[in-house]
Amino acid sequence: MLKIEPGTIPTPQLHGYLLGAVAPRPIALASTVDESGNPNLSPFSFFNVFSANPPIAIFSPARRGRNNTTKDTFENVKRTREVVINVVNHDLVQQASLSSTEYATGVNEFVKAGLTPISSDLVKPHRVQESPVQLECKVRDVVELGNEGGAGNLVICEVVMMHIDENVLGEDGKIDQHKIDLVGRLGKNWYVRGSGEALFEVEKPIKNLGVGVDAIPNHIRNSYILSGNDLGKLGNVETIPDPLEPENASAEVRHIFRQHADGMERREALHHYAKELLEKNQVLEAWNVLLTDKLNRI
Amino acid sequence: MLKIEPGTIPTPQLHGYLLGAVAPRPIALASTVDESGNPNLSPFSFFNVFSANPPIAIFSPARRGRNNTTKDTFENVKRTREVVINVVNHDLVQQASLSSTEYATGVNEFVKAGLTPISSDLVKPHRVQESPVQLECKVRDVVELGNEGGAGNLVICEVVMMHIDENVLGEDGKIDQHKIDLVGRLGKNWYVRGSGEALFEVEKPIKNLGVGVDAIPNHIRNSYILSGNDLGKLGNVETIPDPLEPENASAEVRHIFRQHADGMERREALHHYAKELLEKNQVLEAWNVLLTDKLNRI
Repeated sequence: MLKIEPGTIPTPQLHGYLLGAVAPRPIALASTVDESGNPNLSPFSFFNVFSANPPIAIFSPARRGRNNTTKDTFENVKRTREVVINVVNHDLVQQASLSSTEYATGVNEFVKAGLTPISSDLVKPHRVQESPVQLECKVRDVVELGNEGGAGNLVICEVVMMHIDENVLGEDGKIDQHKIDLVGRLGKNWYVRGSGEALFEVEKPIKNLGVGVDAIPNHIRNSYILSGNDLGKLGNVETIPDPLEPENASAEVRHIFRQHADGMERREALHHYAKELLEKNQVLEAWNVLLTDKLNRI
Repeated sequence: MLKIEPGTIPTPQLHGYLLGAVAPRPIALASTVDESGNPNLSPFSFFNVFSANPPIAIFSPARRGRNNTTKDTFENVKRTREVVINVVNHDLVQQASLSSTEYATGVNEFVKAGLTPISSDLVKPHRVQESPVQLECKVRDVVELGNEGGAGNLVICEVVMMHIDENVLGEDGKIDQHKIDLVGRLGKNWYVRGSGEALFEVEKPIKNLGVGVDAIPNHIRNSYILSGNDLGKLGNVETIPDPLEPENASAEVRHIFRQHADGMERREALHHYAKELLEKNQVLEAWNVLLTDKLNRI
């Protein structure tokens, strides 16, 4: 392992490691105004939601690493205490990125990025019409984490009004991740698209109490064929099923027993087959296969 | 647009909207100990990094929505002020999810999830050996955002030691997003895998000052063929190129002029071709094509 003690390497290098390791990060396209009402728009990926009741989001317009100056967004929220956080999806990503250009103070990034400002209900800053979800926020607190280049500034925001484009809702009335098509930031110039083939589901272990990986019999748990993910799925069952009676074994298992007289080879084949079932989330079927691997014959 | 005023709908419903809209979220697999040294391990996606100097990460073990109880992780960090944040990649996701099972206080989730605790250098909680990046943290502050179910609790952490598996580094010594293969949380049971085809690059508009979408001539800017992303790329050039002399037009452009005598049809064909070039990030070539669309002949 590479070991890094912060303070012993230059801040930009540490910054790069943090951006590469803590990812993917959601993007806040933050709309603010200065005291005269001049608009500003800029994206931030030091951002997330942290609470539902009250609904709190935080983003950080950090002090610039190269010259320790602050961003217009930071000055605006400190003075006017309002912001609209617009989420960024794939259709919007190039324009959101363009709005991060360091134009002079007073330049309207809505215009430069070609985005459409629309009025908010409860705050002065405009919403971005092109964004599928817009969060009108009052700033609860601004916490300056340091005074050197690279220091973050927590802008702690309470969501006072949420606007959701109905086109991103599924039939159940909830946000459909494929429809909203959000993007996230990673290290360097990388983004990830949060839809399509990149998405996968993991069943939440909330209601049931999984037996745990420690309860998996050793002959299965120590398999060099099964991965940690495989064991995680096996450990998320409420009870380990009883072994099937041999006469109830599936055709595939019977086939494996016919093919492999050697016990070790048979176990390998059974574990490979169980792994395939686990990849299809057929967890109970995988357990049934694995629990035959100590039998001599079926 | 669907309009939601927090406080007028049940917290779990608002929570669901926030999780679906603010995504993808990075995952902190937080390792803590209680005052007697008993370990606890649990994943949180109300998490991000917010500052590089000092290096600050925040995660939120929120009050449970259904019964307003607090999590062991929250009680542990309040008392012992230390945590190791382990990042979660695709190889680890099932076990990380399993560790979120609500086992009784005192149950060791390292054991239940089948993960390997290894000693930290500067803090008591163990690191997760299977995680590719482990952040040893001292807790600077714990901020309770409310006292009802669903209220977040900000655990503001300063990273005091960072461990990075060398296998996730690229040849440039930086973290390679494909190698580290991080996963992010979205709404419902969805996760996104931050590697492979889901990744794409957007050139940072930091050094140059893009002309902006507002500087794009109207005959291009108002095209119904070009998307916001296309305009964003066109607006990110430092200067709009001079139109090529007609005799220098590319073979493709000549072909389009030969095919389409009608000016409107020709413009459509040129814009479709420019869009293809933009999708391949050939921005200057796209500009060259688009700047011919007002010519009568080549």
